[in-house]
Amino acid sequence: MSRTHRFALSPSRILFGPSLLPKYAAVTQLRWQSTVNSKASKEKRTNFNGLTGNEKKFNPTSETYPDIQRYSKFAKVTPEHVEFFQSLLGKETAVIDGVSKDAYSDLESFNEDWMRKYKGQTKLVLKPISTEEVSKILKYCNENMLAVVPQGGNSGLVGGSVPVFDEIVINMSRMNAIRSFDDVSGALVVDAGCILEIADEFLIKKNYIFPLDLGAKGSCQIGGNISTNAGGLRLLRYGSLHANVLGIEAVLPDGTILDDLSIMRKNNTGYNLKNLFIGAEGTIGIITKASILCPQRSSAINVAFFGLESYEKVQEAFREAKTQLSEILSAFELMDRSSQEAVSFVTKNNRPLEGEYPFYCLIETSGSNPEHDSDKLSKFLEFAIEKEMICDGVLAQDETQIKNLWSWRERIPESLGHWGGVYKYDLSIPINDLYALVNDVRKRVENADLIGDSNNYPVSAVAGYGHMGDSNLHLNVATRWYDKKVENLLEPYVYEWVGERKGSISAEHGLGLAKRKYIQYSRSSTMIRLMKQIKNLYDPNGIMNPYKYI
Amino acid sequence: MSRTHRFALSPSRILFGPSLLPKYAAVTQLRWQSTVNSKASKEKRTNFNGLTGNEKKFNPTSETYPDIQRYSKFAKVTPEHVEFFQSLLGKETAVIDGVSKDAYSDLESFNEDWMRKYKGQTKLVLKPISTEEVSKILKYCNENMLAVVPQGGNSGLVGGSVPVFDEIVINMSRMNAIRSFDDVSGALVVDAGCILEIADEFLIKKNYIFPLDLGAKGSCQIGGNISTNAGGLRLLRYGSLHANVLGIEAVLPDGTILDDLSIMRKNNTGYNLKNLFIGAEGTIGIITKASILCPQRSSAINVAFFGLESYEKVQEAFREAKTQLSEILSAFELMDRSSQEAVSFVTKNNRPLEGEYPFYCLIETSGSNPEHDSDKLSKFLEFAIEKEMICDGVLAQDETQIKNLWSWRERIPESLGHWGGVYKYDLSIPINDLYALVNDVRKRVENADLIGDSNNYPVSAVAGYGHMGDSNLHLNVATRWYDKKVENLLEPYVYEWVGERKGSISAEHGLGLAKRKYIQYSRSSTMIRLMKQIKNLYDPNGIMNPYKYI
Repeated sequence: MSRTHRFALSPSRILFGPSLLPKYAAVTQLRWQSTVNSKASKEKRTNFNGLTGNEKKFNPTSETYPDIQRYSKFAKVTPEHVEFFQSLLGKETAVIDGVSKDAYSDLESFNEDWMRKYKGQTKLVLKPISTEEVSKILKYCNENMLAVVPQGGNSGLVGGSVPVFDEIVINMSRMNAIRSFDDVSGALVVDAGCILEIADEFLIKKNYIFPLDLGAKGSCQIGGNISTNAGGLRLLRYGSLHANVLGIEAVLPDGTILDDLSIMRKNNTGYNLKNLFIGAEGTIGIITKASILCPQRSSAINVAFFGLESYEKVQEAFREAKTQLSEILSAFELMDRSSQEAVSFVTKNNRPLEGEYPFYCLIETSGSNPEHDSDKLSKFLEFAIEKEMICDGVLAQDETQIKNLWSWRERIPESLGHWGGVYKYDLSIPINDLYALVNDVRKRVENADLIGDSNNYPVSAVAGYGHMGDSNLHLNVATRWYDKKVENLLEPYVYEWVGERKGSISAEHGLGLAKRKYIQYSRSSTMIRLMKQIKNLYDPNGIMNPYKYI
Repeated sequence: MSRTHRFALSPSRILFGPSLLPKYAAVTQLRWQSTVNSKASKEKRTNFNGLTGNEKKFNPTSETYPDIQRYSKFAKVTPEHVEFFQSLLGKETAVIDGVSKDAYSDLESFNEDWMRKYKGQTKLVLKPISTEEVSKILKYCNENMLAVVPQGGNSGLVGGSVPVFDEIVINMSRMNAIRSFDDVSGALVVDAGCILEIADEFLIKKNYIFPLDLGAKGSCQIGGNISTNAGGLRLLRYGSLHANVLGIEAVLPDGTILDDLSIMRKNNTGYNLKNLFIGAEGTIGIITKASILCPQRSSAINVAFFGLESYEKVQEAFREAKTQLSEILSAFELMDRSSQEAVSFVTKNNRPLEGEYPFYCLIETSGSNPEHDSDKLSKFLEFAIEKEMICDGVLAQDETQIKNLWSWRERIPESLGHWGGVYKYDLSIPINDLYALVNDVRKRVENADLIGDSNNYPVSAVAGYGHMGDSNLHLNVATRWYDKKVENLLEPYVYEWVGERKGSISAEHGLGLAKRKYIQYSRSSTMIRLMKQIKNLYDPNGIMNPYKYI
């Protein structure tokens, strides 16, 4: 084991040098700044569409999902409707009108999701500037049976934020103000359309951070984050949005303004209605404002990256990290060999560790005292090596190295997409079973002779990675082309596997259009019935984000 | 200032010696083990009833609240009903029957709350042992229009857990099993009737703790804690039950079993119905099981107690503590001079500090490394003294001293009750205004010439204390006798004051019977209407805990 005692022998002996390090724009964007939403990556994004088998063509959702029919109860948008909205919203840029004239290209970015998997056919986009405008829009739509899709940053992964047919898009981007911040309590009040990164940058100047961080932070909006109950990277430490959203203001389909914008941490006066809207994916109302409890910024960040020889050792290391790092542990990320091979192959970057291991973990600590944190982390790493929990590892020495180590986690999704497209599953699984699914799926694909290194095989890799600290596995099956045989091997197998273990078939991505059919693997028929009751209570006409969710 | 630099000069120079320290039963009960729920204190509990003006007599709620009339829609319990329940529940001890025979004294403890402020008149108590039994009970009650009151440990402060008239009590004490615990993820599954302290002791053996701690831990039940969204002492560090309850199983009034007992931290598949039941006070269903995310136990606990010269200094100290102590800060409690004078007067204990100050604070840190934590706390205290934020202070040197310092916070409620009774207000107020209410109320009472040291004055003290870290103030007006003039001075003044500042008129105690009339000071008419809609959806017959909540 002496070869691998890199932590114990000399923490400064780390492998990667300055020449290998990418340049990063801002000090505040420590990591995870995935390129998927950037303009550059949009241009070279893959056209893979797992549902059509067509790698080039990007068909409307109505064609890729032929089982979904437009509800005849909904009215079609007429020039008279457009006129009403124009007189309501005033400003010309607030209404993109494809009804009275041709506006196909102006409407495109509102109709399509960033993955180019879902394409709607709306001819009308509305951009309200105030809660009152949202209220009047919804009231009018409800009375006139006009279906709508609330839209934030349109960075979701399940097709929830674009229309299926001609639903009117209510885009929240103009409602983007930061309303107030209390630097004693940490309570922030923002408009729903405020971009996550802008709020985070505002907070960093006040020595606070937003309790949520995720890849799409540069484009996603806080209203959308709350509507989809986004999980992301800070959940292990700061908890979910159910923990951190102090209050919301939302507009119901009939125009009612639900005003629950408290900045108090405690308020035991009646039902917690706001929680219904956290994760409701715009199906019962539109969130227009939110108040959020923000934690103080940690002055010390440390990151370690290490290799382990089995999933049992991963669990041991996780348990030990929770004990020894306790209050400063802010991330415990799992990556398997396949995921790291993909990153290495695509990026050509030097690997952080010399040897190859079946599993890799990335630990991050965030605390208020650099010396104390380094001391805790070093002790943990020494202990973990001594007990043979981990085989080899490196400890970042500065911020650039922190970013470099994180890149081995954050670049997995794009790297796995290199061969064509990826079947992506975002699952909660009890921690002791977490990785067993990846093994089972890989075996299944191998047994069917569908995986291999040459172009004769549809599957190039079966990889597992994710937020170990949250029991959240991302299972990715990377493919060279769409093959019904692969899909049939995976579905409903994966959902059944997760359902049997009482996991979740959508841990953090939500249901949207993509997962709506699979909810029964995570929820009983009673729960689904009770959820439909709620939908019906708030949206009896069903105008809010139809064809999706439950 | 040199006299007061006790922290800086010598942390070991603390005032209280072993002779002054009370004996404590268990190492695990570090603090806050208020005596109010103990048998001894029950015997000498005050009979004060702020609503009747009668210090001796303890009237039924129906008399103290003459405005509440029994709903004629509810059936009266007949011997036939009792027979049904007896055949359903089997065991004789599962049904306390005051319908077919005289069982007044057996029913007493289920009819009365521990403060002896609320007294119901039930003649039937049911103690189910399983979810299926709860389901059958509720279905039968719903079909027969029999009103019910779900009852946990009956330790609430707002009269929510006892009947008003003859509602059937469904007592959860027999459903008290600990179902499972995952020592990697920290997910605990328990029956609703499990006593908080028993769960906490179970967890301590596993090196975990329950994320909630409060005075009544020895008698309150976890189902009741969740139903009332109990706040307590660990909220600052671990968040509310909305953050920590992973799942619930609950029975709806029609007998439907809502099965949402996930042990996963993430599950974005549909509406978050469970959150509706957190804080619903048994008005839409009965929680029967819960899964809770538990944090690991901190090996290091430190407590400091100090005096400050103004509320501005308190705020400065709080802000600084959040920055310097950050991830290890687990309590920041505020106590004013009046509250400490009361404790000193009643307990006759030596004060922790020599001088008197307008404000005192207690800070607790919990972390994984004793040396690191002591170092952080000492540095903070040195800094705070140097910057003249705090005047004087002591740092506990061992567990006994920790308990002693905590006793100056925990014994406030009983000490203020010494003169007769207390008007208690549990309020959320934006932190910069938090203490202004106490000053305003004191002035108001002084101006009306109602406060004084002699027995000629009804009011003996106006005191403020509470969970500063959560913006949660406990305003207590200690009185010698009930006086309508005092009540008229306080109400609705206090509620209006809080309402104007968008605070909460019930931060953690809930609405129950006591606060149901004041909800409009914390919630708009729209919110109240939407809440009533939820009540009506789940409990159209209104059988669940009637006369209370909204």
